[in-house]
Amino acid sequence: MLTTQITQTYHLTTPIISAGMAFVATPKLAAAVSNAGGMGTFSAFMSPPEELRALIRQTRSLSDRPFGIDFITAAANDDHIAICMAERVPVVIFFWSFPPLDWVTQLQNAGVKVWMQVGSLAEATQAKAQGFDAIIAQGQEGGGHNRSEASIFSLLPAICREVAPIPVIAAGGIIDGRGLVAALALGAEAVWCGTRFLASEEAYAHPEYKARVVTATVGDTTRTTLFGPEMPGQLMRVLRNLAVNQWGDRVADATKHGPTQPAIGSTILGGQALPMPKFSAILPTPDTSGDFEEMCLTAGESSGNITAIKSARDILWEMENEALDLLTYRLQAITKEQNLMAAG
Amino acid sequence: MLTTQITQTYHLTTPIISAGMAFVATPKLAAAVSNAGGMGTFSAFMSPPEELRALIRQTRSLSDRPFGIDFITAAANDDHIAICMAERVPVVIFFWSFPPLDWVTQLQNAGVKVWMQVGSLAEATQAKAQGFDAIIAQGQEGGGHNRSEASIFSLLPAICREVAPIPVIAAGGIIDGRGLVAALALGAEAVWCGTRFLASEEAYAHPEYKARVVTATVGDTTRTTLFGPEMPGQLMRVLRNLAVNQWGDRVADATKHGPTQPAIGSTILGGQALPMPKFSAILPTPDTSGDFEEMCLTAGESSGNITAIKSARDILWEMENEALDLLTYRLQAITKEQNLMAAG
Repeated sequence: MLTTQITQTYHLTTPIISAGMAFVATPKLAAAVSNAGGMGTFSAFMSPPEELRALIRQTRSLSDRPFGIDFITAAANDDHIAICMAERVPVVIFFWSFPPLDWVTQLQNAGVKVWMQVGSLAEATQAKAQGFDAIIAQGQEGGGHNRSEASIFSLLPAICREVAPIPVIAAGGIIDGRGLVAALALGAEAVWCGTRFLASEEAYAHPEYKARVVTATVGDTTRTTLFGPEMPGQLMRVLRNLAVNQWGDRVADATKHGPTQPAIGSTILGGQALPMPKFSAILPTPDTSGDFEEMCLTAGESSGNITAIKSARDILWEMENEALDLLTYRLQAITKEQNLMAAG
Repeated sequence: MLTTQITQTYHLTTPIISAGMAFVATPKLAAAVSNAGGMGTFSAFMSPPEELRALIRQTRSLSDRPFGIDFITAAANDDHIAICMAERVPVVIFFWSFPPLDWVTQLQNAGVKVWMQVGSLAEATQAKAQGFDAIIAQGQEGGGHNRSEASIFSLLPAICREVAPIPVIAAGGIIDGRGLVAALALGAEAVWCGTRFLASEEAYAHPEYKARVVTATVGDTTRTTLFGPEMPGQLMRVLRNLAVNQWGDRVADATKHGPTQPAIGSTILGGQALPMPKFSAILPTPDTSGDFEEMCLTAGESSGNITAIKSARDILWEMENEALDLLTYRLQAITKEQNLMAAG
């Protein structure tokens, strides 16, 4: 058990939260994380309102613990918010752009906690002014959508100072107990882990996608706007593959390649089979087939430190136990001469 | 007192090492850091061999504690190495490219410890094979020369695993006790701090340069090859100013601008007054005058967390005390329910 402001407020036994990764973070993953004592979140991206309601109920059927719903703000509407209020969702998280202020107020009045994920000090300042309940600070290490202005080592303490006493959750690069303790030392009250849970048994990612995360080294990701012509200019951290090596290092913009692209695979979304065009930001799930050298494979720098696909429960327990071991024994040994001197 | 493998081997009382920043890390700064219980290093960049000997003796006249000499490998020659052996320098550090293997062996046979600063897993593997005594892992956060492939959160644990049992020193983003503890949690045996000591009373940097470090925020640096036509293609992390905003975000290469550039200031190097041409990588010292909006101002992301110029001694003491406080009280509180349960 690790006790922080976030674990106390949200009744968790460990300050580990799984990220609401589009396409791959489903109720199954969220419930597994929540059931293990952390907090799971699922992605509401591309879910119409009534599907969102079904996802909420599915999560509740799998867990009676707190969970969160992660929105890319531009893909949310009033109906989504109304459903979150009606269903009394524990936590709603916004990312990439700020939601209308009345959404925040309405959700909070309905008993829903509202978090904002930011990547800069300026965004943190705005989030503080808008009264969010917690702020997720995403460093440049993070996978997926990422336009963070600095790495966690510098950004996290700066944001903690800026928004105090609002609790800050660290995102980017954290996959084990070492990273958890480092984030707590830098001022976080919890950690937000995407890539570690992407390589979990429960994540709805294609096995080949998970395998590439496991075999990557720390230098195998980059940030690029290569993918996603539907929503142009999205800076995302992705695994390097042929498409990225051909285009991505120039921070190419997907829109520059024109609206019509050949299919590099096919997938199923919302029950419908559809082609996956080159430069699409759709992530490969078990329903996908095609050329993985051409696909968007979002992942963080932490891919380089992930060596096995594990259950969400094992991931949490190992992180917690490694953190406890570090805090109780290994880091304490560093202070031992001090303690001996104090005792003497 | 904080005790790690590095403090024990080098007889330090705190695992904090100041970086050998070219132009600005002089024997005065190195001695101040060593006298306060850490280890100071000075830069041998552009010092002819006999000047190097004078710098070593100057350091010894100011401190009887261990210190290091930091070489950009390409700027070192056999005479420099012979002097380091003859003077029995405690530590020699190489960076940017690997030294000839016989330099490492000769130095070690003369009782000199030899460290290598790396920015990638591939370099770490090579450093391990070449038998260095310690490895400095530089993350993308770091100021000055920096072609690191990832941030400290992911790179440091990966390098620690790769080179074990060789001790690893973390570089990039560390300015206070929080960062020190975070680096120790991630596996480092010490930290290597540049920017924090750039903004020290003892650093030989122009007051305007120090002031810009103090007023910067975490997003105010970037990596660019804009500066240094003498040694082209050097990726460096610098403070944004007019020159960087005009050219640097395109990762412009200084050599593209041609060999002849107008002077944007003047300075004194090796006792000689000389003009500072536009795009020069020469850093401004108290001997410099000119347009700071055009100069190369190397600095790390950590600039955003530095709020005051302090003495090297105060920097070390505050870092150490904050780290001890974190380890002894604030992080221990996180485990307290666990301890109560164990006790019960």
